[in-house]
Amino acid sequence: MKYMRLNTPKFCLILLLFCFGMQEVNAQKASWIWYPGDFDIYMSNVMQNRRTERGSFFPPFWKMDSHYVLVDFHKEFNLAAAEKVKLYVEGAYNVKIDGQALFGFPKTITIPAGKHKLSLKVYGQANVPAIFVQGKTVVSDNTWLTTFEDKEWIDASGKTSDKSGTTFVNAGTWNLTDPLTPPSKFKLPVTPMAAVKTEKNGAGFVSDFGKETFGFVKLHGLRGKGKLMIYYGESKEEALSTDKCETLDALEIDLSMKKDSVIGLSKAFRYVNCQHEGSVSLDSISMLYEYAPVAEKGSFKSSDVELNKIYDVAKYTFQLNTREFFIDGIKRDRWVWSGDAYQSYLMNYYSFFDAPTVKRTLWAQRGKDPVTAHINTIMDYSFYWFLGIYDYYKFTGDEKFVSEIYPRMKSLMKYINGRQNKNGLLEWMPGDWIFIDWADKLSKEGEVSFEQLLYCRSLETMALCANLAGDVAGAAAYTKHAATLRTKIFDLYWNNDKQALVHSRIDGRQTDNVTRYANMFGIFFDYFTPAQKLAVKQHVLLNDNINKITTPYMRFYELEALCAMGEQAYVLKEMKSYWGGMLNLGATSFWEEYNPAKKDTAHLAMYGRPFGKSLCHAWGASPIYLLGKYYLGVKPLTAGYQTYIIEPSLGGLSWMEGKVPTPEGDIEVYCSNKEIKISAAVGEGKLRFKSSSKPVVKNATVTEISKGLYEIVVKKGVDYSVKYAAVK
Amino acid sequence: MKYMRLNTPKFCLILLLFCFGMQEVNAQKASWIWYPGDFDIYMSNVMQNRRTERGSFFPPFWKMDSHYVLVDFHKEFNLAAAEKVKLYVEGAYNVKIDGQALFGFPKTITIPAGKHKLSLKVYGQANVPAIFVQGKTVVSDNTWLTTFEDKEWIDASGKTSDKSGTTFVNAGTWNLTDPLTPPSKFKLPVTPMAAVKTEKNGAGFVSDFGKETFGFVKLHGLRGKGKLMIYYGESKEEALSTDKCETLDALEIDLSMKKDSVIGLSKAFRYVNCQHEGSVSLDSISMLYEYAPVAEKGSFKSSDVELNKIYDVAKYTFQLNTREFFIDGIKRDRWVWSGDAYQSYLMNYYSFFDAPTVKRTLWAQRGKDPVTAHINTIMDYSFYWFLGIYDYYKFTGDEKFVSEIYPRMKSLMKYINGRQNKNGLLEWMPGDWIFIDWADKLSKEGEVSFEQLLYCRSLETMALCANLAGDVAGAAAYTKHAATLRTKIFDLYWNNDKQALVHSRIDGRQTDNVTRYANMFGIFFDYFTPAQKLAVKQHVLLNDNINKITTPYMRFYELEALCAMGEQAYVLKEMKSYWGGMLNLGATSFWEEYNPAKKDTAHLAMYGRPFGKSLCHAWGASPIYLLGKYYLGVKPLTAGYQTYIIEPSLGGLSWMEGKVPTPEGDIEVYCSNKEIKISAAVGEGKLRFKSSSKPVVKNATVTEISKGLYEIVVKKGVDYSVKYAAVK
Repeated sequence: MKYMRLNTPKFCLILLLFCFGMQEVNAQKASWIWYPGDFDIYMSNVMQNRRTERGSFFPPFWKMDSHYVLVDFHKEFNLAAAEKVKLYVEGAYNVKIDGQALFGFPKTITIPAGKHKLSLKVYGQANVPAIFVQGKTVVSDNTWLTTFEDKEWIDASGKTSDKSGTTFVNAGTWNLTDPLTPPSKFKLPVTPMAAVKTEKNGAGFVSDFGKETFGFVKLHGLRGKGKLMIYYGESKEEALSTDKCETLDALEIDLSMKKDSVIGLSKAFRYVNCQHEGSVSLDSISMLYEYAPVAEKGSFKSSDVELNKIYDVAKYTFQLNTREFFIDGIKRDRWVWSGDAYQSYLMNYYSFFDAPTVKRTLWAQRGKDPVTAHINTIMDYSFYWFLGIYDYYKFTGDEKFVSEIYPRMKSLMKYINGRQNKNGLLEWMPGDWIFIDWADKLSKEGEVSFEQLLYCRSLETMALCANLAGDVAGAAAYTKHAATLRTKIFDLYWNNDKQALVHSRIDGRQTDNVTRYANMFGIFFDYFTPAQKLAVKQHVLLNDNINKITTPYMRFYELEALCAMGEQAYVLKEMKSYWGGMLNLGATSFWEEYNPAKKDTAHLAMYGRPFGKSLCHAWGASPIYLLGKYYLGVKPLTAGYQTYIIEPSLGGLSWMEGKVPTPEGDIEVYCSNKEIKISAAVGEGKLRFKSSSKPVVKNATVTEISKGLYEIVVKKGVDYSVKYAAVK
Repeated sequence: MKYMRLNTPKFCLILLLFCFGMQEVNAQKASWIWYPGDFDIYMSNVMQNRRTERGSFFPPFWKMDSHYVLVDFHKEFNLAAAEKVKLYVEGAYNVKIDGQALFGFPKTITIPAGKHKLSLKVYGQANVPAIFVQGKTVVSDNTWLTTFEDKEWIDASGKTSDKSGTTFVNAGTWNLTDPLTPPSKFKLPVTPMAAVKTEKNGAGFVSDFGKETFGFVKLHGLRGKGKLMIYYGESKEEALSTDKCETLDALEIDLSMKKDSVIGLSKAFRYVNCQHEGSVSLDSISMLYEYAPVAEKGSFKSSDVELNKIYDVAKYTFQLNTREFFIDGIKRDRWVWSGDAYQSYLMNYYSFFDAPTVKRTLWAQRGKDPVTAHINTIMDYSFYWFLGIYDYYKFTGDEKFVSEIYPRMKSLMKYINGRQNKNGLLEWMPGDWIFIDWADKLSKEGEVSFEQLLYCRSLETMALCANLAGDVAGAAAYTKHAATLRTKIFDLYWNNDKQALVHSRIDGRQTDNVTRYANMFGIFFDYFTPAQKLAVKQHVLLNDNINKITTPYMRFYELEALCAMGEQAYVLKEMKSYWGGMLNLGATSFWEEYNPAKKDTAHLAMYGRPFGKSLCHAWGASPIYLLGKYYLGVKPLTAGYQTYIIEPSLGGLSWMEGKVPTPEGDIEVYCSNKEIKISAAVGEGKLRFKSSSKPVVKNATVTEISKGLYEIVVKKGVDYSVKYAAVK
C-alpha cells in the first residue's frame, strides 16, 4: 500500500516503465515464471488495496489470498554443449543440478553438456517466488514444472524418496521479459498529459483535463510550508465539493525550494481542485496518464455519427478500466468484480483481444482454496466466473488454461453444490450476497429463478471444461446435474398465464413477480422453445409494465437477448437513446448507472452519496460487444475461431465496417444494403445473409440454404465481395 | 531469508532484544494481536527457512502457508469518559469508530464516552497484519474479535448488509507488549559468550566453546581483503573437516580498518574453525548465544550422580531446541517436525511448562487449509499432532485453545479419513511418508499396525476435543469410528501365537514380523487387557530377539511403556546405560541417534554423510519426562491439574527430589526409602505409595486402599510428610 504523504525526503517519483508489451510469451524466449495464478493473486492484492475513500484506506471485504511462499521450479535439458546460464530470482533460493545443491545464491552457473535437470527452490513472503533463467537454450518459460510441495524427503541413508505424490504443473508466465524488472516491480506504463483548462477557484485553482482520465497528478513548482489539498472530480461539481468529493489527497508540504513532484497514488478524474494553506504555492498541475498497453484490434464505424461516437467513448471507457486486471470502475472500487469482469471479457474479444488480462482476472477472482464464500461474496458472481472460462476457451482456443484452472473450478462448484437446499435449488444463506442488479425493490427472497439459471449454465460449463481437462467422470456427473436442474427450472418457474419465468419461489410457491433477468438470460442461453422465446419477447422484454433496467450492466444482457432474436433495429434505437443520452449530458465515458428520468446532479449520486456514482464503469462499454457480435455479426462456432459465422445486420444503418480480432488475426467486415465485403485471417467461416435477389459473389460459390437466405464459405486470406439486395 | 554476505556497508549487527518475557498476556494490558495462528505460521516460515547445508539454502519440502493478508479487528467499548488511544499497526490500515472511517492512517484517536465500536482493518503481504492499541481502558488483547473476510457490502442506497455470515474469532496474541517492536521484528534474546579454548589450525584457528551451543559468531578485529571461511562443528572432527562439515559461512571481506562484526545467520556448534585467505586477518571470535527465555520450573535431583548429569544435559539439550518453536535439532533441520515436537510438549510439561511455545508449534505445524499432505508429509506425524492437542489440554486446562484450533483438527481428520483403504485402514498412498523410526529394514509396506494404532488414538482425541469445542454430532461420530477401529486392530493384528500385535498386513494377511512400535504404544494407550500387557512385556519389550531401537526418539516410548508397567528399576538401568553411554563418549547434549555398537567417528555419521547426525536433538532429552512422570510420579488426572496423582517410584535410587510445574505453581516431591514429602500449589491430588508398615503422615489421614497400598489426599498449600517403609 503506497499511500501519499508528501515530505521532501520521502517524496517518491513514479518510475516510467514502457517495457511491457502484451504478447503471450513464446517458448524459446526467457521470461519470469512463477506458480500459476500466484502473480495474478499477488498483483490483485496490490491493485485492490489501492482504493481510498476521502483519504481513508478502503480494502475489499472478501478474503484475499496469498501466493505460495515456497515454490520449486525445474526442467530437464539435453545440451549439445556446456552452457553458461544467468539466474535472476525474486526470493531466497537454492540451485540444484541433478539434485546437487550449489553453494550460496549463484547468479551464473554452467550446465554441462548432456542430459541434466536444473532446479531452483525459492522462498518469498513479501513477493511472489519467481525466477528468470537466461542461457542460450536454457531459458525459463511455461514449459518448466513447478510445485508448492516437492515432498522430497530422504531416508536414514540419505536416499531421496522415490515414490513422491507430488503434483507438478506448468509454470505461470506473462510478458515479463526484463530480468531486471521482477514481478514485484511490475507497473503499468505512464505518459505525460496536460490539463486543457485551468481556472482560479478561491485561493487555488481547478484544472480540467478535458475528459475522464486516470493517473498520477504531477505538481509543478510546489513550494512552501503547510497543507496542500487535492480534490478529485469526475465532474466539476465533485471536484468543487471539498466535503463530499469521493477521493482527495491531503499533503503536508515543507519545501524551501520549488520542486516538481508526482503524487504516489493514482486516481480517476477529469477535474482536479488544488487548494493550499499556509505558505504553500503551486504553479500548475499536469498528470502522468497510466494505461494498459493493449493493442486496439477491433474496430467499428458506420453511417451513424452518434453511434460511432458511442462506440469510441465505449472503447475509451473500456480501455480506462482495462488495467492490471479488468476492474469495475476507475474512481471508486478499482476492484476485480466477477460479474463486471465477465462483461469485460466479452468486450475484450471484440476490441483488444488481450488473452493474458482475461486469465489474470480469472485467477485473481478465484484465489486459492479453501472456498469460504462466493466470488466477491456474490452468488451470481460465482456463476459468471464459470461462464467466463468457457467463453475464454471459445474465443481463444486455449485448452491449456482450462486444464490449469479446472481444479479450482471443481472446488468452487463443490462449495456451491454444498449449499443446495432440500429442493436442489440455491437460495440465500448467511454470508451470501444475491446481487442480480442495482434496482429498487428487487426481491432476493426465496429461490430466485435468475440464480438457478446461472447455476444451471455453470454446471453445463463444468461439463464442457471437465471434458477439456480430461475428467470424464466429472463431465458425466455435471452433465446429468445440469440436465436435471434445467428441467426443474421450467417445471418450477415457467408460468403459462404470464408466458414467462417468474422471478422467484417462496415457501415452495411461485411469486407473482416477473422480472426481465431470468427471461432475457433464458433467451441467449437458448433454454426456451421457439414459442417460449417469442412469448418472452412480447410479454417481458418489450413490455413496459415490467420494471425497467437502469444499469448499463443489465442493459447489456437485455439488448443482447433482443439482438439474439433479430431485433437489431430496435436495439440500435435503444443504444442511441441510452448511451446517446449520456453523451448528451456531457459524458466523456460511460456510467455505472443511468436513469434518463433523473435530472441534473442527481445523475452523479449513488449509494446515498452525492458523488457516489462511478462515471467511468467498464459495464458501461457494452456497445463494443453488441456492435461486433450482433451488427458486424461475427461469432466463433468452434474454439479459437477455427470455424465461425458472420451474419451482418445493419439494423437500419446505411453501412458499417469493422474488424473483429481472433487469435490469428482479424476478420474484416464491410456491409451496406448492396454490398458485403469480407476478409479473414483465421479458420473457416460462413457468411450468411438475406437477399431479395440472387447475390453476385466474387471468389466463392453461394448457396441458398433456405428461401432468400444465402451462405458462402469464407476461407482465410481470401477477399470476398458480395453484391446483394438487402431485405428490410 | 537473511543470508550472510560480508561487505562493509551491508554489514548487519544483530539487535539485542531482551524485552520478551514468557507469560501469557492478561486482559487489561495491551499487546500486539493478529488473526489466531497467523503469527505462528509466519514465524515458522522465517524459522524453517533458516536451514542451510554447506552454504546452500535448504528449505522444507512441504507446503508452507501464509498469514491472511487482509484482516479486520474490532471490539466494542463502553467508556465512562472520552479516551485518547494510541494506535500502532503493522500494515496498511484504516480505523473506524462505529463504522465511520477516519482520515488517513491516524496514530492517535479519541473515542467519545459511551458505547462505541472500534475497528481496524489491516493489509499486509510481507508481514502479519497486526495491531497494538493503547488507551487507558481501550487496549488490544485477545478479547478483540477478528476475521479475514468481513463481507460488509452495501446496497445501492449505501446501507450495509445486515445479514452477514461472517465468522469472528478471538484475536491471537502472545507476549509482544512493546508497541515499537511489532511481530515482524520479533527476535529471541542473545547474550555474549566466550570460547573456552582456541588453538591454531593451519593458517587460522579453531575455537572451542566448551559444549554444544547455538547463536551468532562474532568476529573480533576483522580486517583485510579476501575470503574468510567459517566451518562449524558439533564435534571437533566436523569443524576440521572443511569439505564435509554440515554448515559453513564463506565471507567476502573488504575492510581497511579493524572491525568487530556478527554473522547474520545463527548456527549450532561447539567448535568453530576460522580460515582466511588473501590479506584477511582475524583476532579472535566469540558468540552471541541465542535462547528462548523460558523459566526453569521443573527439576530433578537424586542420589545417583550420573542420573543427575543425564537430567541436566537432557534439560540443556531441550532448552537449545526450545526456540521460536519446538524444533527437532539445532544444527541441521531447525524445522518444526510434529513427531519430534510431540515429545517436546511432554518434556516441556515437566520442565518449562511454557504453554505459548506449545500452541505456536501446533499452529505452525498445521498451517492453513486445504490439507494437501500429512503434517511434514508423514502419516504418523499427522497423528502426533492430534495427540499433542489433547495432552496440551490435559496439562494446561486451556479449553479455549482447543476450541480455536478444532476447525483445523476437523479438516485434517477429514483428509485422513478420505485416505482409508477398502478395509477402513490406512496404508501408503503417493506422497505419504510412513516414518515410524529410523531403523534398518523397517517395512512400511501394506497396512502397518503402528499407523492404525495412532489413527485410532487420534480419533479418540477428536471425540474428546469435539466435546470441548461443543461439536456434539462430531463427538458421537468420532467416538463410534474410534471404537470400530480399535476392535478391528485387535481382530486383524493380534497374534495369539506371538502374544503380540504383528507389524503389518500385506494383501489382507498378517506378516510374520513383530516390532516394538505398536506393542509399546498399545501399553500406554491402555489398549491391551492386563494379560495382553504382561504377554507383550515379556514377548516384545523384554525380548532381545525383537529388533532393538537405536533412536532416543523411540526409546522414549519404549521406556515409557516399561515405566507404565512399573519397571522403573529396569528403565533406570537402561537410562544410565543409554544416555550415560553418550555422556561417556563426551556428549554435552543428547543425540539424534545412538547405537552403542558403533565405534568412534561412526557415531557422527548419518544419512550417508560423515557428520550428518545431529548431536543436539530434542528427542534426545526424554529423561526429563520419564523422571518427572514416572519417578517423581506426578500426572494430571483432570485438565490443568485440577486433580492429579503422585506415585513416586525410586526404581533403585536411595532418594530423589524435584518439582513438577502446573498452571498454578509447582508440585514438589521428595522421596527416599523412608520418607515422602509433598507440597503442591494446585488443585487436589492423591499421593499413592506402597509401604510394608503403616505409614505415619503429617497433616493428612492415610487410607489403605488395598493391601500395603496407601493413599493420602493432597491439598494445595499444605506440606505433607510421610514416614513409611519402602517395599523393594
